[in-house]
Amino acid sequence: MAGLPGLAYSRDMKNVLQYIDDNLDASLARLFTLLRIPSISAQPAHAADCRAAALWARDTLTEMGFSARLSETSGLPGVIAQHHGAGPGAPHVLFYGHYDVQPADPLNLWHSDPFDPQIIEGPRGKRIVGRGAVDDKGQVVSFFEACRAHLAVTGTLPVRLTILLEGEEECGSPSLAELLTNERETLAADFVLVADTNMWNFETPAITMSLRGLAASEVTIHGPSRDLHSGLYGGIALNPINALTRILGDLHDDQGSVRIPHFYEGVAPVPPALAESWKTLGFDAEVFLGEVGLHNPAGEHGQSPLAQLWARPTADINGIYGGYQGDGTKTVIPAEATAKLTFRLVPGQDPAAIQKNFEHFVMERLRLDAKASFRHLGAAPGFTISMDAPFMQAAQRALRDEFGKPAALVGCGASIPIVEAFKTHLGLDTLLAGFGLDDDAIHSPNEKFEVACFHRGARAHARLLQAFAGF
Amino acid sequence: MAGLPGLAYSRDMKNVLQYIDDNLDASLARLFTLLRIPSISAQPAHAADCRAAALWARDTLTEMGFSARLSETSGLPGVIAQHHGAGPGAPHVLFYGHYDVQPADPLNLWHSDPFDPQIIEGPRGKRIVGRGAVDDKGQVVSFFEACRAHLAVTGTLPVRLTILLEGEEECGSPSLAELLTNERETLAADFVLVADTNMWNFETPAITMSLRGLAASEVTIHGPSRDLHSGLYGGIALNPINALTRILGDLHDDQGSVRIPHFYEGVAPVPPALAESWKTLGFDAEVFLGEVGLHNPAGEHGQSPLAQLWARPTADINGIYGGYQGDGTKTVIPAEATAKLTFRLVPGQDPAAIQKNFEHFVMERLRLDAKASFRHLGAAPGFTISMDAPFMQAAQRALRDEFGKPAALVGCGASIPIVEAFKTHLGLDTLLAGFGLDDDAIHSPNEKFEVACFHRGARAHARLLQAFAGF
Repeated sequence: MAGLPGLAYSRDMKNVLQYIDDNLDASLARLFTLLRIPSISAQPAHAADCRAAALWARDTLTEMGFSARLSETSGLPGVIAQHHGAGPGAPHVLFYGHYDVQPADPLNLWHSDPFDPQIIEGPRGKRIVGRGAVDDKGQVVSFFEACRAHLAVTGTLPVRLTILLEGEEECGSPSLAELLTNERETLAADFVLVADTNMWNFETPAITMSLRGLAASEVTIHGPSRDLHSGLYGGIALNPINALTRILGDLHDDQGSVRIPHFYEGVAPVPPALAESWKTLGFDAEVFLGEVGLHNPAGEHGQSPLAQLWARPTADINGIYGGYQGDGTKTVIPAEATAKLTFRLVPGQDPAAIQKNFEHFVMERLRLDAKASFRHLGAAPGFTISMDAPFMQAAQRALRDEFGKPAALVGCGASIPIVEAFKTHLGLDTLLAGFGLDDDAIHSPNEKFEVACFHRGARAHARLLQAFAGF
Repeated sequence: MAGLPGLAYSRDMKNVLQYIDDNLDASLARLFTLLRIPSISAQPAHAADCRAAALWARDTLTEMGFSARLSETSGLPGVIAQHHGAGPGAPHVLFYGHYDVQPADPLNLWHSDPFDPQIIEGPRGKRIVGRGAVDDKGQVVSFFEACRAHLAVTGTLPVRLTILLEGEEECGSPSLAELLTNERETLAADFVLVADTNMWNFETPAITMSLRGLAASEVTIHGPSRDLHSGLYGGIALNPINALTRILGDLHDDQGSVRIPHFYEGVAPVPPALAESWKTLGFDAEVFLGEVGLHNPAGEHGQSPLAQLWARPTADINGIYGGYQGDGTKTVIPAEATAKLTFRLVPGQDPAAIQKNFEHFVMERLRLDAKASFRHLGAAPGFTISMDAPFMQAAQRALRDEFGKPAALVGCGASIPIVEAFKTHLGLDTLLAGFGLDDDAIHSPNEKFEVACFHRGARAHARLLQAFAGF
């Protein structure tokens, strides 16, 4: 970072940030226009509203100087906008956001109309309340405003920029693969910037460095050819529920490690620098677990709570069923019993191999007449960003400049399907840096976005765009 | 047995048996009259038919010389009949049967009207086909005909006899406790004779020496206070399904023995004479299990298949559920998971202690934040007849005399609630000796009773009554 930024950078950047500060009210007014459009993708009755939101984005970006259009799919359209004023040698950033929102139900829990956004006072100053305030319209517009400021002050952008807005993120992105395939050439870029995640806390920005992958499997243990009376057959007849619990009860050893063969092969330890940075986050596992009625981290012994959450693979039974489930008792030995499992995976683990090895784990524990059948329901590898990725260094610099402290380098225990889609369809890595807060109530009544987060988000995006120019 | 029967016994007995042989057609005609009454206790529309069957029994027994009456309950009436011609010093036998039958559905699978009984030819000669042919009208009438023969030949019965017919056996005996309580003094006897079980095979009678008891328990493992996302919490949060399988997977050791503390305390080994007698039965576990798609006895190592079925306690999970059970996958760590278990018990095991010790078994395996709650749903001790019981020796002698070979001394892995009720309410042991066959299709379409079984049943009952006089 020494030697950067130069004087020209500093003067322009200062003016860009000043422009954002001076135009905050106008920025909010533009956001409110978008928030008033009830673009609920899950509800067919709102299909026209979704399209109206897409058109608003297209027109807004066109007015700012982008070349913008809708990209039709078999579902709701995407919005694609490009500004290549930075010239062919400049880095090419693909920004991703979504213009659709969650349904607003239950309406009676809202303190104001979810599609009539309000500014109200909160403990951290003013906040925007409305469906989509942060997820994802507020985040998208804060990025638009960063672009607007660069364009107003310098007449262009520091990087080549392609903006992709999806219209079906809140209903499972059924057309995203189609959209990415159709637009593969247009979307060719150096990396993806996604603004749909949270800060670590109100003072501290965050970059999501890793997502866990997923392998889902279902196993059914088959015993007798029909349900049996547990009196007339009990003792001599194999009971598939007993067999299933016996097998799955062996899934973890006494140290909390998963006993599936080769499960940890390829799993890298947390990089020491990352582990060090986590120690500075002040994560309190007891508080985190206390909110859901628990106290003790239940994962692998010797792994920190954050490593258990973000960096270590898991084996969770998500559902189990067999035999009688009604009131009282029924003396049955059922013909079969089933469990559904997901394995959260980290980079280095091959989801298909995990599923295969789970089969082996079960098969080598089958006894007597028990048989097993399997269904494998989904598989996605884990994802991680190298701390050495060039855009990482740029992003860390920009965020530190804006917030006066380093970004938290966090993990996410879950998958974010779009990240996998960008990797699969475009071959691109994704930088996840957003400005929401954990208490923003996304998907819930009274969704909000702190005005300060919207504002600092725009300023941070402006710095990020500038920083990416230099990597 | 030496010294018995004396000459008088032999001559009377011969005449009694001859009477039965000579009157077989009339006996069948009387049975058919009862079979034509659709006394389906589970169906309120047949309440009058049930009462008609009770009245038929009362009147039939009255005509034979019994003092007979209905005994009203809050449900269907019982029938009580007494003949004490044997005098106050004679043994007092309580005979139990039931006059109600199962519904006949599905009607389309019957080859004839279930309530228009037929005699048809089968591989073992003539058979009676109709609902109730064996269960229990055929068995009851074969006993009545034995009494009729004694009364016709000798003018009295060899023992004091009380007959109790229940009208609700096929719908769970809801009023039996009331009936036994109301009639406790009338029903005071030396033991109960129940004719509602099967022979070992067509050539071999059987006495059921033991029934297993039952303790039913439900355990729920509680984890987080609400369902959690398995990505955002997986690894750090206790998963109650994982915990439940881990605990219940430990229910049996590698030898198939139940690991609940003190589980086998008080369990007596199979008496050597009984174990020896089982070896002569020709039980083929592979055939028995093969009929339900299994091959290998799954119980305790070192116990014979029949011991696993009849004489050893079990721990079967009858139902399990938790988390997601629908199609596909759901990434949930549920708040709780539940299993329903029954323990089949043998004499010497205290059902309440087993339930308590099961709680201990679970509690001592709980880890971290897991909590457990329990419901105990039913408990009945196991039951056994001593091979030395006086009525046992008499019964064995009578059955051997009739069939020319010893009765099979069998167990039953299930409970028979009436046996428990007689013990609880009247303090009486029960002799279970009936003349049905396993292929009689009770509770199913085309229920049948071999005429030979009906006939030999009547002869055997006549011998049993005589034999009981001498114990």
